[in-house]
Amino acid sequence: MPEDYAARAAASVERWDLAADVVVAGYGIAGAAAAVEAARAGAGVLVLERTGGWGGAATMAGGFVYLGGGTPLQRALGFEDSPENMARFMLAALGPDADEAKIRDYCAGSVEHYRWLVGCGVRFKKEFWPEPGWEPPRDEGLMYSGGENAAPFDAIAVPAPRGHVPQMDGKRIGQRGGGYMLVRPLVETAESLDVTAEYDVRVRSLVVDDGGRVVGVVATRYGRELAVRAHRGVVLATGSFVYNDAMVERYAPRLAGRPAAAIEEHDGASILMAQAIGADVAHMDAAEAVIFADPQMLARGVLVNGRGERYVPEDTYAGRIAQLTLAEQDDQAFLVLDETGHEDALASTTATPFFRTPPTWAAGTVEELETEMGLPAGSLQATLAAYNEGAAASRDPLLGKSPRWLRPLTGPFGAYDLRGCTAGFTLGGLRTDLDSRVLRASGDPVPGLFAAGRCTSGVCAGGYASGASLGDGSFYGRRAGTAAARP
Amino acid sequence: MPEDYAARAAASVERWDLAADVVVAGYGIAGAAAAVEAARAGAGVLVLERTGGWGGAATMAGGFVYLGGGTPLQRALGFEDSPENMARFMLAALGPDADEAKIRDYCAGSVEHYRWLVGCGVRFKKEFWPEPGWEPPRDEGLMYSGGENAAPFDAIAVPAPRGHVPQMDGKRIGQRGGGYMLVRPLVETAESLDVTAEYDVRVRSLVVDDGGRVVGVVATRYGRELAVRAHRGVVLATGSFVYNDAMVERYAPRLAGRPAAAIEEHDGASILMAQAIGADVAHMDAAEAVIFADPQMLARGVLVNGRGERYVPEDTYAGRIAQLTLAEQDDQAFLVLDETGHEDALASTTATPFFRTPPTWAAGTVEELETEMGLPAGSLQATLAAYNEGAAASRDPLLGKSPRWLRPLTGPFGAYDLRGCTAGFTLGGLRTDLDSRVLRASGDPVPGLFAAGRCTSGVCAGGYASGASLGDGSFYGRRAGTAAARP
Repeated sequence: MPEDYAARAAASVERWDLAADVVVAGYGIAGAAAAVEAARAGAGVLVLERTGGWGGAATMAGGFVYLGGGTPLQRALGFEDSPENMARFMLAALGPDADEAKIRDYCAGSVEHYRWLVGCGVRFKKEFWPEPGWEPPRDEGLMYSGGENAAPFDAIAVPAPRGHVPQMDGKRIGQRGGGYMLVRPLVETAESLDVTAEYDVRVRSLVVDDGGRVVGVVATRYGRELAVRAHRGVVLATGSFVYNDAMVERYAPRLAGRPAAAIEEHDGASILMAQAIGADVAHMDAAEAVIFADPQMLARGVLVNGRGERYVPEDTYAGRIAQLTLAEQDDQAFLVLDETGHEDALASTTATPFFRTPPTWAAGTVEELETEMGLPAGSLQATLAAYNEGAAASRDPLLGKSPRWLRPLTGPFGAYDLRGCTAGFTLGGLRTDLDSRVLRASGDPVPGLFAAGRCTSGVCAGGYASGASLGDGSFYGRRAGTAAARP
Repeated sequence: MPEDYAARAAASVERWDLAADVVVAGYGIAGAAAAVEAARAGAGVLVLERTGGWGGAATMAGGFVYLGGGTPLQRALGFEDSPENMARFMLAALGPDADEAKIRDYCAGSVEHYRWLVGCGVRFKKEFWPEPGWEPPRDEGLMYSGGENAAPFDAIAVPAPRGHVPQMDGKRIGQRGGGYMLVRPLVETAESLDVTAEYDVRVRSLVVDDGGRVVGVVATRYGRELAVRAHRGVVLATGSFVYNDAMVERYAPRLAGRPAAAIEEHDGASILMAQAIGADVAHMDAAEAVIFADPQMLARGVLVNGRGERYVPEDTYAGRIAQLTLAEQDDQAFLVLDETGHEDALASTTATPFFRTPPTWAAGTVEELETEMGLPAGSLQATLAAYNEGAAASRDPLLGKSPRWLRPLTGPFGAYDLRGCTAGFTLGGLRTDLDSRVLRASGDPVPGLFAAGRCTSGVCAGGYASGASLGDGSFYGRRAGTAAARP
């Protein structure tokens, strides 16, 4: 039976089991940030969390927070940046048609948001990791995480690394790395402000009064219903819809069957509850994506689609490679390396050694390799001939790959089958304004209702940069808390 | 000021100005089909149309109706088809993840739907047009309209033409061609069944009773409000949202600023009114597209993207070329012809002679042409060398273009700048079931509310075939009328 998520009329609630000024659904990064700011604004805050503990998908994440505009960490490591420069990159990389007002607002507030995180106890180590990779190999605090230093974005904005990674006490804590070290201080800050949390409580309905204002929620705990009154506002922060198969089919079908970097609680509940009272959604087709390949190997290789053609500079953010593969190349990709490049890659440092498997195919000549791979006759040969001709002159006229990675490929060759090797999470969700108010299709806010994190459409429309989700989740989580706390 | 579209409570309606069993909003193809079937089911039907006359975008259209499975016209012209074969094509071509239940239902009912149209007075001329083109040049009744006979679909399903074009009295009637000849008989049929219509009446709100049932609409005429009671059901059929800039930005940003083949009344009103009471939407990112090029020239040329690479067989449905250019190639396309191919194309028959402009660039060699076009050095040269090598052997290993169109291109060359030369309309909309009931996010229908046509998500998710909109608009318009008429 599908979930209902229909709203309840306030008049039908016989008894309120719990009450607070601000009720937050979901205790991940957005919920924690909302709780802190609502409490600081003087509100009594209750967080309802469906699982047995705080953290959500955020604590499982590598921990990148996308920050810039000249943060103390950027400056300490010698990188210049400004809100305008940051916005130029984000507008170019996160579209098509990313929310410009949100991006300008996010960039203008980014340095302050860095200080706020540090003020809550989040630490960033003053060390820059300059190599390609999904994450820094250790706890280095700063890294390029969106292709800022690769074509075409390096010509659109001055390259600046903006992936800020919380320090990890010298080691990764189990499966919990930077994300855990980001959320824990926020939750501890919330606790110090007398925020209370109830666990194993799953929010299922919004409660609406006669005037259309959200005045509480109905949840269940161990099968028993709980009515929870929110005197000032409700904040929805329960994550994406990537584990809701029906929604993924309707909105982001290319991601069907391939959720990743999310948790199974990401079932779209917040979106559905708010839609049931007329909330609007935005960019529901957008998806973050990973591709199961090592960026150090990608940068040294030639990546082609199912037609044997190159389509993205191999040295850019690997998430961009994944997105373009999934969205524009029908999830068809092949990585070709020669022996020299392969050995060079294996000798480099990586955070993802598990992607360094043996090649799917190996051959002495490109022609043999092309045949083994089943690519159209002549296609890979033409692509590699053109690549090698440019590389010999340290140029990539087709895609602008950096000369650092350009070297003519000579046999023997190996190739990786990367078809169907992407996965990810959805980026679309509730349409919100700069105060994290949930908007109707008319553009009017739903009174009493706020949202942040991956149940909303944030700074990303089609593109992505690592750190954008913990980034806009914490940034607009704060806004939601502040706005919801207003009496 | 943005439109509100908020629902009205039935209790707040002081007086009903008009009433009928079934109230239909919008008198285009879907509304006309709904009106006919509701009237035949015994309901009194009132159509409310915002403009001064019936027809909507449909009467401006070329008139293709996508029908198959073995229609009398297909059989009379020697083409074999079956519902299963038709479904195989549609599932492959109209996705990713097109609504399988709807497609199977649509294919199973297609022959009956052909007979229904003919029964209403629509005529199809027994003549097949075998050439590439946006439309048949005259009033030929049948044509390939979705790339059924081109790679890769010709290997997925047995090719059968399914673009059925209503006969046009031997000439096009002003700007009104096949679409007019499709809608007029339906409207005449409706009138013969005592369907009434009120013009210059713009529906602005749904009226909902205490139980959540839609019981009418509030409209305006010349600035004055009209409350219209629907005793059995309301059918929404007011077209797409492509002229609603804010919605296009949120849902289908690549189409921003480029609406086409629609009318300005396509402002998403039906979607917004239904969302305001919790209706769900689907595939809002999907877009039909045209590209401003002559298919006869495309088939004889080599089409490349901004990297100088081929990406689609040039002899497929030109709408597919347009969609892939817009969605996957950043709207970057260039068409290269040689003099022989150009002259051959100019000698062919076309419905779109206005696309036969002189080339943007001309050059004696590919190298010169590539430089003039600003393509990456060597890219077009490599592409044409590979194309010519295959063409000399009547093969296109890369994309499977038909041998009919394969010929090595020799100078002199001309090229067309097709960057930013696409336009189209949105395909996403209200989520409906096979009875055209409007569904909530929960999957439950909204009582009393039905919808069809381009304000709904129909048989197309990402892909398109010409005739799919008049096709599912009329097919599910009928269903909406039948379902809404149930007492």
